[in-house]
Amino acid sequence: MIPREEYRERQERARARMRALELQALVVVSGPFYERPGDVAYLSGHLPPFPTSETEPPFAGTGYAAAFLDHRELVLLVDTPRYRSDRVVADEVRVSVDLWGTLVEVLRGRAAWEVGVVGTDVAPVEMARRLEEAGFRMVPADGLLRSLRRCKSAAEVDLLRRAVACAREGLVAACTACIPGASEQEVCATGVAAALRAGADFVRYLRVHSGPWSAWTTRWPPATDRRLIKSDLVLLDLVGAREGYHFDVLRTTLVGFDPLPWQRALLEATQRALARALRTVRPGVPVREVVAAALGAYEEAGLGEHAATLLGHGIGLETVEAPYLRPESEARLEEGMVLCVEPSVCLPGRGGACIEEEVVVTREGCEVLTSGIPRLLWE
Amino acid sequence: MIPREEYRERQERARARMRALELQALVVVSGPFYERPGDVAYLSGHLPPFPTSETEPPFAGTGYAAAFLDHRELVLLVDTPRYRSDRVVADEVRVSVDLWGTLVEVLRGRAAWEVGVVGTDVAPVEMARRLEEAGFRMVPADGLLRSLRRCKSAAEVDLLRRAVACAREGLVAACTACIPGASEQEVCATGVAAALRAGADFVRYLRVHSGPWSAWTTRWPPATDRRLIKSDLVLLDLVGAREGYHFDVLRTTLVGFDPLPWQRALLEATQRALARALRTVRPGVPVREVVAAALGAYEEAGLGEHAATLLGHGIGLETVEAPYLRPESEARLEEGMVLCVEPSVCLPGRGGACIEEEVVVTREGCEVLTSGIPRLLWE
Repeated sequence: MIPREEYRERQERARARMRALELQALVVVSGPFYERPGDVAYLSGHLPPFPTSETEPPFAGTGYAAAFLDHRELVLLVDTPRYRSDRVVADEVRVSVDLWGTLVEVLRGRAAWEVGVVGTDVAPVEMARRLEEAGFRMVPADGLLRSLRRCKSAAEVDLLRRAVACAREGLVAACTACIPGASEQEVCATGVAAALRAGADFVRYLRVHSGPWSAWTTRWPPATDRRLIKSDLVLLDLVGAREGYHFDVLRTTLVGFDPLPWQRALLEATQRALARALRTVRPGVPVREVVAAALGAYEEAGLGEHAATLLGHGIGLETVEAPYLRPESEARLEEGMVLCVEPSVCLPGRGGACIEEEVVVTREGCEVLTSGIPRLLWE
Repeated sequence: MIPREEYRERQERARARMRALELQALVVVSGPFYERPGDVAYLSGHLPPFPTSETEPPFAGTGYAAAFLDHRELVLLVDTPRYRSDRVVADEVRVSVDLWGTLVEVLRGRAAWEVGVVGTDVAPVEMARRLEEAGFRMVPADGLLRSLRRCKSAAEVDLLRRAVACAREGLVAACTACIPGASEQEVCATGVAAALRAGADFVRYLRVHSGPWSAWTTRWPPATDRRLIKSDLVLLDLVGAREGYHFDVLRTTLVGFDPLPWQRALLEATQRALARALRTVRPGVPVREVVAAALGAYEEAGLGEHAATLLGHGIGLETVEAPYLRPESEARLEEGMVLCVEPSVCLPGRGGACIEEEVVVTREGCEVLTSGIPRLLWE
């Protein structure tokens, strides 16, 4: 667990940013547990217990939570008395099914008429309406916490390492289940159960994309009733969390372990792309150099036009965080960033390959947190 | 699957409501797959492939989707080319990582300057900002689809029945795993895997609340590393979906099958509350009469002050839908509603009991879809 003092330090750092932006107060809004709980969790330790649902007053179960922060206190706003008070670091907690009405009260009580808002991309229109009606001016301040969350503390890296251990159990079990005749759903069930048994808070999904579906980077649903046949490429993308910190690891396997020439080309190019990308990782390096290194390997293999240009992303209290590993990125790597590096290539209609590692940027280069998970499980 | 003609009928019914509200056009916004995908799925068949994540242009993966509807067409807006076009019923599909920018374009192209918005409680502030900047006037119209979705068609009831079959497999497996020494996490893994193997698209969560935690109606995380001991009450709440239609079934079990007197009192009162509630269910009956019947049974058992007043909710393309079974409800039951009826009682610090059945309101009364799942698994 994150020490209580670390939460107080985070709150102090957020206050410093707030003052730098000449804001008197901040409202931080987070979504439910599968969806963007990070900002409120980062500041207060609160993790929402429920996904959102449609509601009508006085019944609420939206899953949203909010934090009010000014120069002297942090007030957490939740909509259920069953929040984990043992995990929360706040000066006051307000519990109300009318979350946004309570937020208005808190702001009025502190005469905070202009507030920075973190989470405008997740806070519902309804919140904005209530604040506007009550006469408050909102200043979008979405980047404020993002920059603080980008580099992880030692305690955070330790939790991310423990989260990866759940991914390991899940992926090894899922790979073992990839035999001819097994359905994607059966592989999914096996992998999810292993990750939960290993202590995951939840598994957000295990995408099992087999055969032609392996060329899809995303699909509804995560697993279908398609049955595996010999020589299917199978992408296994396992995403979830442990103690609030996420894991996101992807492996490609092959039913029967005997790749056709075009499959071998995809897999070898992906391994080379990954190795090249990881070799460039160290503090100060522009993100786009990491991306270029991977894409260069695909170019050399004649697969450049089929390679994804999004090479990965940060990870922490949410699955996808800054920095985004894109060719256009202006960011540079910093010590303590934890990155999901996931070169991928897809031949539409035929199949695809991807390998995703989690790495922490160290002073000298990087440490691969997922090195205990075999890259190609048949070798 | 829902027949394509049924989607066209839904679109026509939505148009009729739109005209009744004197609206020229409608924008329907839905959340990602765990969170409120229902309205866009109801109109178009689109189910989002991914949960939401923080993004930065041009990379998007928000999981949101939108539908534009006017008197002649339905335009679906999605942010990935990998949407399941085989399942979608729309006149046009626009794919763009800039979902809200594309929505502005669509509205401009149709000169729709005033639009009804369905989903103001889920659409992000960012969407409202973009529409306002472009000069559009938004009229909240959240209830418009809710009333259409309340009563299920024969095809929908069939899908809900198939979804319940997944819950059955999951709960029976989870109950069997409730032995002394097993952790909540192990029980959770067993139940989730069984539901996925039975064909669930996903399991949103299996809450395993044991011992004192059984008095918590909600908690982060859904299962902990607490190990079960003899005489623990264990609440098992399994929520997920199959073919887009949700299941939500809860059972209470007891480790060792030998209830203490206070546990027996909770369990028997809950069974009586459930039986009384279900006996009142038929078309035309006020929702509050169903609630009163259940609460009356708890009153008679001297447990009135500890009983939850929210007795349940509708279910369909989302876990929680109208009607909400609350004492203050003004609604009446209608044929075709599918209800989760879940009387519950909690003694804080000691334990709780809940049994949740899914029932469809029929002409004569109701049919219990979950009757194949034993209510008390030790009897």
